[in-house]
Amino acid sequence: MTGPKASPPPAEKADIEEGTAFSPRFDANGLVPVVVTSVATGEVLMLAYMNDEALARTIETGEAQFWSRSRKRLWRKGEESGNTMRVVELRTDCDQDALWLKVELGGAEACCHTGRRSCFYRALPIGKGTTAGVALIFVETETLFDPEKVYGHASAAKRTLKTQD
Amino acid sequence: MTGPKASPPPAEKADIEEGTAFSPRFDANGLVPVVVTSVATGEVLMLAYMNDEALARTIETGEAQFWSRSRKRLWRKGEESGNTMRVVELRTDCDQDALWLKVELGGAEACCHTGRRSCFYRALPIGKGTTAGVALIFVETETLFDPEKVYGHASAAKRTLKTQD
Repeated sequence: MTGPKASPPPAEKADIEEGTAFSPRFDANGLVPVVVTSVATGEVLMLAYMNDEALARTIETGEAQFWSRSRKRLWRKGEESGNTMRVVELRTDCDQDALWLKVELGGAEACCHTGRRSCFYRALPIGKGTTAGVALIFVETETLFDPEKVYGHASAAKRTLKTQD
Repeated sequence: MTGPKASPPPAEKADIEEGTAFSPRFDANGLVPVVVTSVATGEVLMLAYMNDEALARTIETGEAQFWSRSRKRLWRKGEESGNTMRVVELRTDCDQDALWLKVELGGAEACCHTGRRSCFYRALPIGKGTTAGVALIFVETETLFDPEKVYGHASAAKRTLKTQD
């Protein structure tokens, strides 16, 4: 499989920002952050990461794949839960070190492993003075699937802190 | 100034995901990625980063501040260009290692240093087979300000590759 690294990165800032050559810039861990939004609701569903292989597979298949930092392996979104992501559009930013993926959700149409549509289900109060002891507000409470049923023992066993991706 | 670190992170995954205590998880560089979207258009404007001080100031003032990785300093968005960001809502994700900022743009209502509203002004073809030599498609061409006029000599001198933030 020929990955995105096939195009050598252009040296000039102007080429990266104003050119048509795709030359994604991966970080020190070989990852690029990906903002995922829903074409149905417009909301941000999650922030995930791709390595060059996940990116190449996503571009080639049109189905979102990521690099799981916690499991340290390629991760086809929905492989366990059935909540897949069909890519409608993929964009890169000015300096090509971030991606934006617009998707259609499959399955229960939920992105978050907690069962909610979006991973961003809590808000912070803004402009209310000090940030000490700030309390989060749940802005999305509906769960679209039962994580215990979908992930079973694996989920129940994960009591130590890990990232969701 | 009391920063977000005032709340010690809860140890349990369940508390982080289902609790109301805000305990942002910064990466090895002390940064957390922030997805910025426009309340006016719903589009993703940029992906930027905050350290604890930028986050505290944003929460306290309601005006978006970030950590500039290229300039290695606190960066009040719009300090040079006038294109400030008023925070309408700030959300955290399930495992509290990413933030989502919904903003109203000030000034020329442009976010990107290239003069465009969004930094994500180019798309990639999806599902067209190989990724080798993929050509980006400009999906947003309108510039809302002239970067040369706004940033002047500083911009013209920046011919080496650097991140926009």
